[in-house]
Amino acid sequence: MDIGIIGLGKMGRNMARRLIQGSHRVVGLDSSDEVTRQAAAEFGLDPVFSFTDLAAALPAPRAVWTMVPAGEPTEMVIRELSAVLQPGDLIVDGGNTYYKDDIRRAEMLQTSGIHHVDVGTSGGVWGLTEGYSLMAGGDAEDVEKVRPILESLAPAPDQGWGRVGPHGAGHFVKMVHNGIEYGLMQAYAEGFEILHAKKDFDLDVEKIARIWQTGSVVRSWLLDLIARALESDPDLESIRGWVADSGEGRWTVFESIDLDVPAPVITLSLQQRFSSRQEESYAAKLLAAMRNQFGGHAVKTKE
Amino acid sequence: MDIGIIGLGKMGRNMARRLIQGSHRVVGLDSSDEVTRQAAAEFGLDPVFSFTDLAAALPAPRAVWTMVPAGEPTEMVIRELSAVLQPGDLIVDGGNTYYKDDIRRAEMLQTSGIHHVDVGTSGGVWGLTEGYSLMAGGDAEDVEKVRPILESLAPAPDQGWGRVGPHGAGHFVKMVHNGIEYGLMQAYAEGFEILHAKKDFDLDVEKIARIWQTGSVVRSWLLDLIARALESDPDLESIRGWVADSGEGRWTVFESIDLDVPAPVITLSLQQRFSSRQEESYAAKLLAAMRNQFGGHAVKTKE
Amino acid sequence: MDIGIIGLGKMGRNMARRLIQGSHRVVGLDSSDEVTRQAAAEFGLDPVFSFTDLAAALPAPRAVWTMVPAGEPTEMVIRELSAVLQPGDLIVDGGNTYYKDDIRRAEMLQTSGIHHVDVGTSGGVWGLTEGYSLMAGGDAEDVEKVRPILESLAPAPDQGWGRVGPHGAGHFVKMVHNGIEYGLMQAYAEGFEILHAKKDFDLDVEKIARIWQTGSVVRSWLLDLIARALESDPDLESIRGWVADSGEGRWTVFESIDLDVPAPVITLSLQQRFSSRQEESYAAKLLAAMRNQFGGHAVKTKE
Amino acid sequence: MDIGIIGLGKMGRNMARRLIQGSHRVVGLDSSDEVTRQAAAEFGLDPVFSFTDLAAALPAPRAVWTMVPAGEPTEMVIRELSAVLQPGDLIVDGGNTYYKDDIRRAEMLQTSGIHHVDVGTSGGVWGLTEGYSLMAGGDAEDVEKVRPILESLAPAPDQGWGRVGPHGAGHFVKMVHNGIEYGLMQAYAEGFEILHAKKDFDLDVEKIARIWQTGSVVRSWLLDLIARALESDPDLESIRGWVADSGEGRWTVFESIDLDVPAPVITLSLQQRFSSRQEESYAAKLLAAMRNQFGGHAVKTKE
Repeated sequence: MDIGIIGLGKMGRNMARRLIQGSHRVVGLDSSDEVTRQAAAEFGLDPVFSFTDLAAALPAPRAVWTMVPAGEPTEMVIRELSAVLQPGDLIVDGGNTYYKDDIRRAEMLQTSGIHHVDVGTSGGVWGLTEGYSLMAGGDAEDVEKVRPILESLAPAPDQGWGRVGPHGAGHFVKMVHNGIEYGLMQAYAEGFEILHAKKDFDLDVEKIARIWQTGSVVRSWLLDLIARALESDPDLESIRGWVADSGEGRWTVFESIDLDVPAPVITLSLQQRFSSRQEESYAAKLLAAMRNQFGGHAVKTKE
Repeated sequence: MDIGIIGLGKMGRNMARRLIQGSHRVVGLDSSDEVTRQAAAEFGLDPVFSFTDLAAALPAPRAVWTMVPAGEPTEMVIRELSAVLQPGDLIVDGGNTYYKDDIRRAEMLQTSGIHHVDVGTSGGVWGLTEGYSLMAGGDAEDVEKVRPILESLAPAPDQGWGRVGPHGAGHFVKMVHNGIEYGLMQAYAEGFEILHAKKDFDLDVEKIARIWQTGSVVRSWLLDLIARALESDPDLESIRGWVADSGEGRWTVFESIDLDVPAPVITLSLQQRFSSRQEESYAAKLLAAMRNQFGGHAVKTKE
Repeated sequence: MDIGIIGLGKMGRNMARRLIQGSHRVVGLDSSDEVTRQAAAEFGLDPVFSFTDLAAALPAPRAVWTMVPAGEPTEMVIRELSAVLQPGDLIVDGGNTYYKDDIRRAEMLQTSGIHHVDVGTSGGVWGLTEGYSLMAGGDAEDVEKVRPILESLAPAPDQGWGRVGPHGAGHFVKMVHNGIEYGLMQAYAEGFEILHAKKDFDLDVEKIARIWQTGSVVRSWLLDLIARALESDPDLESIRGWVADSGEGRWTVFESIDLDVPAPVITLSLQQRFSSRQEESYAAKLLAAMRNQFGGHAVKTKE
Repeated sequence: MDIGIIGLGKMGRNMARRLIQGSHRVVGLDSSDEVTRQAAAEFGLDPVFSFTDLAAALPAPRAVWTMVPAGEPTEMVIRELSAVLQPGDLIVDGGNTYYKDDIRRAEMLQTSGIHHVDVGTSGGVWGLTEGYSLMAGGDAEDVEKVRPILESLAPAPDQGWGRVGPHGAGHFVKMVHNGIEYGLMQAYAEGFEILHAKKDFDLDVEKIARIWQTGSVVRSWLLDLIARALESDPDLESIRGWVADSGEGRWTVFESIDLDVPAPVITLSLQQRFSSRQEESYAAKLLAAMRNQFGGHAVKTKE
C-alpha cells in the first residue's frame, strides 16, 4: 500500500527500507532534504520536501507514519500534518510518544476528522533484518487500515504485532516494555559484574554468555547481544560506564507510582543509570562528612 | 558411555532419561527403591539399590553423577561414594551445591585419588526435551572424561555447555545465573503488574506477552513461559502470590557483598520474595504506629 | 498581631491555639461552622463564617494563613480569598501544597497585588506543645510581615523556622523533608523487624529503643516515638501493617527523577508502603506462575 | 572500681579517660607501649605492658574490657587473656565483634571458668563528653558486676545502657543499630542531594539543616552532625564521595536474609557505599555496551 513516512533517522529510514522491500510505496519526508535525497537514491523511497507535497503524493484516504523524536518535534509534525491532511486520513505515531500526549492528540485530530493510531515500536537497529515488535493503540478499524504496513514491519505477518487497546495503549505498552528492558539489562549487568569481580576464578565472561544462550533459564535476545558485546573486549576496557536513559523508563516509574504498584527493580535500574552519569555524588560526600563528624573517620580530600 | 546417577527426582530422572535416549548406559540409584524400579521399568535405566552395587555395576575408571539436594544430602552421598569408589574415579556434582563446598570436597576427595567436577545445571522441567545448560568447574581433563555425557545433556553437542573454571567455578556461575534469573523474573513481574493495574486500558496481558515474543527487545525464554502462564488465567486468580527461593539467590547476594559489587536489582528481587511470604510485616506495623504517634493518623486495628 | 486562619482541622486548630497562647488575635474560618464555634468556645479564637467576614474582621494589610488539604481545597480557598482580599494583603499557605502550585498561584495573585508565602509545616500533633518546624518560601519582605506569627509557632523565636528561598521553596523543602522522613522511618522499621525476628535472643525491643535514645548514633525524635509506640504493645499485635502515604513522598521521588538524582532509599520507602497496602501482589503471583512453568514448582492455589 | 582496658586507640583511650573522670582505677594495655605511656601521662591511666602484668595489677575477681578491632585482633587478645586470667574473672568485649564469635568465645571461656560479656558500644568521638550507648549481652550477674563501669560510660547512670539478652545479644543489637544508622544516613544524604540539585531555588542547605533541628519530624543527632558538616563547606567541595563501611552493615544484611526479613533500605544503603568506592562500574559499562548493540547508541569511549 501507499504510506508516507516523516522522519528518516536511524529508525525511520530502516523502517522505510523494510517497507519498500515489502513492496509498499513509501513517500518520505525528513527535516533534512539531504537525508531524504539519500534515502531516495539508496533504496527507492519516493522523496518529498514539504508537508503539502507529502499530502499531494499520497492517495486519499492517506496514511502517514511519523517517526520523529517524542515531545516538541512530534507535536510540530502532527500540527503541520493536521493542516494538510483531510477528513478520513490517518496519522500513525510510531515514535516514543508519552501516551497521554496520544490521547490528547487523538481527541484534537478527531475534531478535524483525522484519525490517529499510536504504535510503540521496538527492535532498534536490528529491526531492518529481524522485524519490529509493534504495539498499536487506537480504533480497531484504523489499525486494520495499516495492517499491510504492520505485517511487513513485523518479524512475520502474524507475529510480533497487535492492537493492544484504545488511543495511548500502544505507547503505554511500549513504555512498560522499556521499563522491563531496564530491569532485565540491570539484572544481567549485575550478574556479569559479579562474575567479572571473582578474580580467583578468572572467568571467561564471553564464554559463559555463550553457554547460557542455549538451554539456560536466562537465555534471551539481550543475552545474545551481551555475548556479542563481550566478544572483542570482555573486560570492557575501551568503553565508559556512562548510561543514557530515554523517557520511557522515567515514565514507567511515574506510572507505577500513580498506580500504587511497587516496582523497585525497574526504579533501581533507572537510578543506577543516574549514578552512572554522576561525576561526583553529593550524597556520598555527605555520608563521608557525617562519618567524619561522628567517628572521626578521615575523609578523602581532593588535592 | 557408562555413568552412574544418584538421585532420580524431578531433575535426575529426566537427565537419566535424556542420557539413555542419547545411547548411554545409565546405572541409577535413589534413596527410594520404588523410584529406582519405576525408572528402570519406564525408560531402561539400570537399577541398583546400594552404593556398593553402584560401584560394582560401573567399569573403572567410574563416573558418577550426583543429583540430590544441596547441603546435607549431597554431603552424605559424597561421603558414601568416597567409601566405594577407587582412585581415578570421578564424581560429578550436578546439584545446586554452594561453590565453597565443592572446593572443600574436591580437596578432600583428592586425598583418596577421587576426582571431582561440579556442574551447574539449568533447564528445569524443560531440560528433557530442550536440553540442559551445563557449567562445569574442575580440572580440564576430568571435564573431558564426561564430555559425551555433557554433549548429550546439552541442547546440542557444541552448545549450552562448557568448562568455566576450576573447582567450584561451575556452581559459582550457576549461582550467579540464578541471581540474574531472579532479577529478570522480577523485572517482568513488575512490568506486567503495571499493565494489569492500568484498568482504563483493559489490556490483554497474554496478547501483549505474545506480541513481545518476536522482534521485541525483551524477548526471552522467560517471556515465553509468561505467555504460557497467562494463557488460561490472565488475572492469575487461581494462584497465590507466595514465592519460594532456593539458596542460590541468597548466595549471590552474599557473594556480591563479599566482592563489594552493588547488586541492588538482584537483592531487591530476593527481598520481594521474602515479602511475598509474610503474612504480616512487623516493619509495616511499626511504620503505621509511628505515623499514629507523630501525626495522630489512625492505625488500622485488628478486629 | 492579627491573623486569619482558614481550616481548623487537626493541624490548623492547634496552630490557632498556639498563636492565641502567644498573644496573637486569630480570626478563624472553617468549612464546618460547628468546628469554628467549638474553637471559639475552647480557646478564644475569633470566629467568622464567610470569606467576606474574614476579610472584614482583619485590619489591612491583612495576613491570612490557609491550612487546608493540598490540591482542590487549597485552590478553592485561594480563589475565594483573592476575591475578598485587597492589594497589599498576604496569603500564607501552610498546607502541604505541591510547590509548583505555589509558583503558579503566587504569579496569579500578583496580578491582583496580593502577596503569597508558602510555609512548609512539620510537627504533627506535637506542634501545639513543642512548636512547629516552618520553612518559608516567597519574598523576604513578605516573610518578615508574618515574623511574629512564625516566631510564635516555632519551638523558639529564633529556632526551627526560616525563609529558605523564593516562591515554592518552602513547600519544596518540606516535600524533601517528608521524603527523608519516609527513609528514616523505613530504616528504623527494618532494623526493629530484624530485632523482632531474632527469636532465639528474645529481645525486648522497647528496652532497646530506650537504650538508644541517649548516646547512640541513631537517637532521634522518631526513635522517641518508636519507644512510646512499643511501650504498651512491643509485638504490635493490635495494629495492622497498612501504611498510608501523603503526596510528598511521591513528589520527592518525581523530583529526584526530574533532577537525575539517585534516591533509592527514599523511593524504596515509598514503594514499601504501596506493598503494605496490597492484599495481593500480581507481580508475586506471576513469579509463582513462572517458577511453576520452568521448574514444575507447585504454586499455592486458593481454596 | 578497678578495670583493665586493652586497646587504647581512638575509642578505648576516650573510654579509659571517661572512666578515670568517673573515679575508677583503669589499668591500660596497648599493643604500642608508647600509646600506653602517653595515656598514663595524660590522664592518669595505670600503665602495664604485658598481659601478665595486667592480670597482676588487678584484684580478683578481675574485669577486663577489650577495645580492639573485631576479628583476629580480638581473637588474639581473648586467647592471651584466657591464659593469664583465673576462674571467676570477667572479659568484656566492647569492640565491634560479630555476635556469633561472642557466642563461641563465651562457651570456650566457660570451660576455664572465665566469664564473658559482649557490649555493643555506640557514640564515636563524642562519647568522651556525651557518654556512650551500651548494649550488653551475657549473664545478668556478669553484667551487674560491671554496672559501675557501664553507669560511668553511659550518658547518665540510668540512661543509654542496658542488658539486652544472652551472649551475643549485645553485639547483635549493636550490629542492627549500625544497619539502621546506614539507612538513616542514606535517607538524609539523598534528601540533601535533591535540595542541592535544585539549582533554581539556590537553597542554603546548612540553613535548612539548622531549621530542621528543632520541631521537625526529621530532627536527630545525625542531623545535628549534618548541620555542623555543612557549616563551613555547604557544597562539600573539599571532600570526596568515598564512603567506607565497617562490618556491621554487611552483617545486618546477611542476618536479614537469614531471617527472611526484607530490609531493602538498609541493603541499598550498603550498596550505595560500594558504588561510592568504584572508580568504574563494570555493570554500567555492560549496560552501555548493550545499548550500543541494540540501539546503535554511541558509547563513550576512553581517549
